[in-house]
Amino acid sequence: MSSASPLGRDDVGLLTPVRTGSAVEDATGDTAFLQAMLDAEAALARALAPADAAAVVTSAARAGLYDVRDLARRARSGGNPVIPLVADLTAAVARTDGDAAAYVHRGATSQDILDTATMLVAARALPLIVADLDRTAAELARLAAAHRATPMPGRTLTQHAVPTTFGLKAAGWRSLVLDARARLAAVRPVAQLGGAAGTLAAFDDGIPLLARFAAETGLAEPDLPWHTLRTPITDLGSALAFAVGALGKLAADVLVLSRTEIGEVAEGAGGGSSAMPHKSNPVRATLIASAARQAPGLAATLLGSLAAEDERPGGAWHAEWQPLRDLLRLAGGAARDAAELASGLRVFPDRMAANLELTDGLIVSERLIAALAPVVGRARAKELLAEAARAGAGLTEALADVLPADHLRELMDPTTYVGAAPALTDRALTRHA
Amino acid sequence: MSSASPLGRDDVGLLTPVRTGSAVEDATGDTAFLQAMLDAEAALARALAPADAAAVVTSAARAGLYDVRDLARRARSGGNPVIPLVADLTAAVARTDGDAAAYVHRGATSQDILDTATMLVAARALPLIVADLDRTAAELARLAAAHRATPMPGRTLTQHAVPTTFGLKAAGWRSLVLDARARLAAVRPVAQLGGAAGTLAAFDDGIPLLARFAAETGLAEPDLPWHTLRTPITDLGSALAFAVGALGKLAADVLVLSRTEIGEVAEGAGGGSSAMPHKSNPVRATLIASAARQAPGLAATLLGSLAAEDERPGGAWHAEWQPLRDLLRLAGGAARDAAELASGLRVFPDRMAANLELTDGLIVSERLIAALAPVVGRARAKELLAEAARAGAGLTEALADVLPADHLRELMDPTTYVGAAPALTDRALTRHA
Amino acid sequence: MSSASPLGRDDVGLLTPVRTGSAVEDATGDTAFLQAMLDAEAALARALAPADAAAVVTSAARAGLYDVRDLARRARSGGNPVIPLVADLTAAVARTDGDAAAYVHRGATSQDILDTATMLVAARALPLIVADLDRTAAELARLAAAHRATPMPGRTLTQHAVPTTFGLKAAGWRSLVLDARARLAAVRPVAQLGGAAGTLAAFDDGIPLLARFAAETGLAEPDLPWHTLRTPITDLGSALAFAVGALGKLAADVLVLSRTEIGEVAEGAGGGSSAMPHKSNPVRATLIASAARQAPGLAATLLGSLAAEDERPGGAWHAEWQPLRDLLRLAGGAARDAAELASGLRVFPDRMAANLELTDGLIVSERLIAALAPVVGRARAKELLAEAARAGAGLTEALADVLPADHLRELMDPTTYVGAAPALTDRALTRHA
Amino acid sequence: MSSASPLGRDDVGLLTPVRTGSAVEDATGDTAFLQAMLDAEAALARALAPADAAAVVTSAARAGLYDVRDLARRARSGGNPVIPLVADLTAAVARTDGDAAAYVHRGATSQDILDTATMLVAARALPLIVADLDRTAAELARLAAAHRATPMPGRTLTQHAVPTTFGLKAAGWRSLVLDARARLAAVRPVAQLGGAAGTLAAFDDGIPLLARFAAETGLAEPDLPWHTLRTPITDLGSALAFAVGALGKLAADVLVLSRTEIGEVAEGAGGGSSAMPHKSNPVRATLIASAARQAPGLAATLLGSLAAEDERPGGAWHAEWQPLRDLLRLAGGAARDAAELASGLRVFPDRMAANLELTDGLIVSERLIAALAPVVGRARAKELLAEAARAGAGLTEALADVLPADHLRELMDPTTYVGAAPALTDRALTRHA
Repeated sequence: MSSASPLGRDDVGLLTPVRTGSAVEDATGDTAFLQAMLDAEAALARALAPADAAAVVTSAARAGLYDVRDLARRARSGGNPVIPLVADLTAAVARTDGDAAAYVHRGATSQDILDTATMLVAARALPLIVADLDRTAAELARLAAAHRATPMPGRTLTQHAVPTTFGLKAAGWRSLVLDARARLAAVRPVAQLGGAAGTLAAFDDGIPLLARFAAETGLAEPDLPWHTLRTPITDLGSALAFAVGALGKLAADVLVLSRTEIGEVAEGAGGGSSAMPHKSNPVRATLIASAARQAPGLAATLLGSLAAEDERPGGAWHAEWQPLRDLLRLAGGAARDAAELASGLRVFPDRMAANLELTDGLIVSERLIAALAPVVGRARAKELLAEAARAGAGLTEALADVLPADHLRELMDPTTYVGAAPALTDRALTRHA
Repeated sequence: MSSASPLGRDDVGLLTPVRTGSAVEDATGDTAFLQAMLDAEAALARALAPADAAAVVTSAARAGLYDVRDLARRARSGGNPVIPLVADLTAAVARTDGDAAAYVHRGATSQDILDTATMLVAARALPLIVADLDRTAAELARLAAAHRATPMPGRTLTQHAVPTTFGLKAAGWRSLVLDARARLAAVRPVAQLGGAAGTLAAFDDGIPLLARFAAETGLAEPDLPWHTLRTPITDLGSALAFAVGALGKLAADVLVLSRTEIGEVAEGAGGGSSAMPHKSNPVRATLIASAARQAPGLAATLLGSLAAEDERPGGAWHAEWQPLRDLLRLAGGAARDAAELASGLRVFPDRMAANLELTDGLIVSERLIAALAPVVGRARAKELLAEAARAGAGLTEALADVLPADHLRELMDPTTYVGAAPALTDRALTRHA
Repeated sequence: MSSASPLGRDDVGLLTPVRTGSAVEDATGDTAFLQAMLDAEAALARALAPADAAAVVTSAARAGLYDVRDLARRARSGGNPVIPLVADLTAAVARTDGDAAAYVHRGATSQDILDTATMLVAARALPLIVADLDRTAAELARLAAAHRATPMPGRTLTQHAVPTTFGLKAAGWRSLVLDARARLAAVRPVAQLGGAAGTLAAFDDGIPLLARFAAETGLAEPDLPWHTLRTPITDLGSALAFAVGALGKLAADVLVLSRTEIGEVAEGAGGGSSAMPHKSNPVRATLIASAARQAPGLAATLLGSLAAEDERPGGAWHAEWQPLRDLLRLAGGAARDAAELASGLRVFPDRMAANLELTDGLIVSERLIAALAPVVGRARAKELLAEAARAGAGLTEALADVLPADHLRELMDPTTYVGAAPALTDRALTRHA
Repeated sequence: MSSASPLGRDDVGLLTPVRTGSAVEDATGDTAFLQAMLDAEAALARALAPADAAAVVTSAARAGLYDVRDLARRARSGGNPVIPLVADLTAAVARTDGDAAAYVHRGATSQDILDTATMLVAARALPLIVADLDRTAAELARLAAAHRATPMPGRTLTQHAVPTTFGLKAAGWRSLVLDARARLAAVRPVAQLGGAAGTLAAFDDGIPLLARFAAETGLAEPDLPWHTLRTPITDLGSALAFAVGALGKLAADVLVLSRTEIGEVAEGAGGGSSAMPHKSNPVRATLIASAARQAPGLAATLLGSLAAEDERPGGAWHAEWQPLRDLLRLAGGAARDAAELASGLRVFPDRMAANLELTDGLIVSERLIAALAPVVGRARAKELLAEAARAGAGLTEALADVLPADHLRELMDPTTYVGAAPALTDRALTRHA
């Protein structure tokens, strides 16, 4: 069945809704990698060949001229897709200009092209991710400002602790998004060129060529060829995994706050259910959470590939390609979903207020102890509150003998015990990307 | 550019030569998952609907009738691909038989279908993997038998230790392959049916239906619906990761033994290099090694998803889909490459013999000490050998005063110090899958 | 400061409350490993030396006679702790019987001793873990039986889906615990003996000795020396990681159900807070959850060490020791905490009943659609309910025109829509370890 | 047995030779964490209490006054060690000054203290790691300068590719070490103070206090309390994992180059073997490699904890403590071992030269093709060399008809085909930390 279809063995996104259809998915598909490899070859030709030969190579360097499936299949023989691509590109160039063909891939090694292509793909995908992080941060700033003083329960180890504000919560999410943005923006994709073993031996003018090649690709020039000095890969991988995890915090909170019993927020367009029409699921948060669970294992694989023997390792390099692409896609998808989530998030201050009343004042026990301590001593104060908590009895009665009723009522109002939350929110909003 | 092409965002295998073009890749593509979801729906219809309605559903359950890309795109709204598929399948059935449509997905939840489909995909992919492991084991048995007594250096911490035989090495590889086979063969894919929260509430006869549904799918019947009891997923994931790692041992050894300086084995058809025509790279081993580096992180993600809250978690479930597929593909690809590697492996006993001479007898220092100890004492014996090793001087001279020359020559022959290696090889070969 | 104290650099459990003070922590401490290494040496002596020499070695093989700190320090020179231990043990034996000293470690390699010791430690720790899993399963069986029909909301993607019973939930937790028990009980720790490169060359009678050695250790006999055939390690590691993850499901649910707003369960003795005396935190669940987050990364490291080159790899073997110990400790600690959690768990059927009312009937929308479909058609039925859900209006009003009030009231009672949950619970409870 | 000993359950370093006895091990032991928690409490007292009370607290904040084992045990009840420590510290202060006791931990939450302590431990450990990286980099600079033009085989996929120089190799190692140094030096440990839910509500003057507290600890002031904004933890964890992996590259290469058959380098003081006196194992490299295999899984756990719900999560926070400590220790140990390795590394240019001859000229096939191409065409040139490689015949004969003998001899000299390796080495050495 599936073998009959050209799609049989493809991954077209059916199992990965978090990234399916995103701009980053498009920018990181096999076709995008193919184009980037061709771009690297063309840049090399422009860096070392006569202008007319370089022009022929450049004009042959269009993905549409090649069969990506066939290249994928033929990649098996030498273990990487550059080898068959060089053959096809050389043939294509030769058809136009026999002499130009001699400049294709001249002096380079497969890894030069694939590593440079990976960096080009990253350089094209990162701005898309950053843009969605910026959209997310802007929406979160709006929410934080609007709710800087909207009280809600602060929760620790799943239990109500003391009140906080929704603004502080949103400001915290934004702070993580800005951290992620800063880490991704600091990534500086760098060209790779070294030849067979990183010595530039097959080039007439190695070191100057390195600069020309980097300039032609638009990437940064490396200090050294980095065949087995994989800092550019792990820097990128760790920054992407951080971004996904940072968005995972937003998702984790939205999942909690959306619970039927809590109901303090809801996704603007929750996901439906075929069987249960009443359901409005936090689907964006769910998908982001699914990404946050997948990213760490992929980042670990990249970190593991740092320990790469020789001038090109047998396996460690090859193990990087798919995990890095997956990380770009998870980050791109999660950022897209976070922007959608943040822009549509509905906030329910009434439910927050109602939830604040659930413990009948115990949520401000910290303040009550501070008030009771001078009267009955700190130890007895704690005891009184712990007893009331255990008994489930009203604090008002329990403390009736100890504090005047109106003072107690005032103390027990959770909405006036949000501490510096509004001020912290304001302060956090002064930070810009 | 890539957006113009229908392949733009697809993964067609360009970055994953270890699995590209393998039978398992085909059996685990998005189309294969689509077909398996349809198979699950058809099995459900046959388990609960009148025969004619079930027949209509079954005949509409062919992947070719649906647009997998469109389903992937629409999966985003509810977070999984079953929701749009049910809509399309229902419409397709309704076009033939309006009444039959009412039986489509009746009482089921998306997870029932996707989990069952995953198990169907696994049930179809596992025999392919096992078959390649069997091929690999058979080839390794051949090598082990042929070289049961072929001496070669045993190496520990990269240094020559004492001699071993190539047969024992191959028997060890085979032993791991059989371990992997046993673990994969023990996996018993199991159907999943529980309805919205695992209570079977929307079915007329829940528990008996569970048995009928399982029978229709050809999968095992579970004790309990396993929405959030993910043993079937982690059992599968851990067995697959083990298989990939076990093959990784074979690859690690082939990479070492193929080194230019060692040259004791070579892949039958090593990979070439565009620039260096002399190279014959151990490409199968390289690709298997790349899989062995990727599998652990994916298995870790699956293990992490065991901690799944509620009757369906917001993220942990969704995080399983792609890693599990990737593990199937890595195992299938690595097994395919291992079978190719083992069937073509060239073994060079002469190089093994030459390498055994490299330390000028020190490789049997263990035996020399045993022989010297009664003469000069164990401590002095060690000292003598350590001195000789440091000096790089010939052992023959160093020990000339201590042992008769012919006895020494005999003792220093590494080929007679392989211990029980041949016997262990024979014993290991008596094990069958 | 810390250097002044003998505890300065020790890990005595301050950062790992999930395992601190557990029986498994004790059984896996450095002293336990030291004793197990000595046990392996003594077993070897008994397997190959004259009885009186073996007795001397055995009597010197007591951890209390050696300085574990000093051994740890000296382990650095050769990279493993067996080398200094053999020196100390030999000296200790020689003090009693000079001739017996010649049998210490005779023909063995460090890895024989350390691998066998690891298996001995596992063999001693596993029953402790299994015992706590058994306690946990028994308590969960009690809860499942008691609450087989206690209705509570089933939750999917954080939202109320349809009702379930607490008994089914507890039966599911138990099912995972039994799965974990079965996987740990299936682990069969196996002795390791191979000599320098796994050929048994330095032993007079290699293969028969293997059996005698295994018998003396009480461990299983391996088919082959498994220096670099690491199935025993990954089988153990994966089973332990599964066990921790399986308990993580219990913890994840308890964390949700304990939430202040949900309140359906509470830990018997929740953890306190210094500042907030009202809090009763789900501390056992928290600690189990912390273990479930740590285990996958450790299991991944062990899986990664399968790809071990040569007869002893430079790093892959050494990378196993601490992660395997950590996994034993996490499993042992999590099992201990799960037993405590399950035995003390308080269940609040009233809160479950109250929560079932929160959606004002929408939790049984699945049943309502089934009832409405014959009257107004399935599509219109869904529409009616979705509208009611969006409006937040009472379903009773929304459906007043469509169904008779008393039938509607009956249909809307969530407690009568638990499907096969009680029967599934009963069925699950027939499974025994 | 072990229960009798106070060390019974401790980890004193027996299974972790890579870090045992290192300065970082000492700086990250349980006692160091205890002292850091006390330092955090003392800093808080100085930031908010009258000077005399603060002095009493500060003077009670000495680890030697508390029982770290007992605290570890009591940490189980509330799930973290701060709760029992606050009790003991309060009691100790009260013994001196009853009024001062009221200021202990005032307004703070456990996480404030433990997170700040973690950052203090990091702040103390990082300079130790950086110092060893600096030592390593200095030694590698020395090696790179000395061997800038020492030719050796460049190896790709385990096969000789083209020549390189040992200086370029060492310069590459150094480059990674400097990258690691830069990433660790960029980590800016930051104080944590937020109170129960991060609002600073229980402090009289929250935001100004934050600055005073940070100043008292010597750590940076955070923008926001970061209870569940875990950037400081993952930044640290990822930088540490990078450092370990970067050193893993050095280790991977040393392991290869030390192989008996290759012998191009040797560790100054290789590890011995009890049974094989001739062995000189690359033990430092082995231990570093063991660290490089463990770090990624630990970093993954930290990345996973970014997705932390609420104002303090039930598990994600607790899961960070041990992995972060382990990463500090692995990095500290690996850096220590790398410094030892680099300072003692012996380099054997003769062996490099001999190895360059192993392929009888094929190692410069790239240059030969370039020379032959104008004569016989590029395709035929490749063919000639590939044939010669397959035949194992001498290149000299194979090419005798094509190129003049003396030109051929010149071309075939591998020592003159190192490309820009010396110049790249020089350029890399101009980079400073």
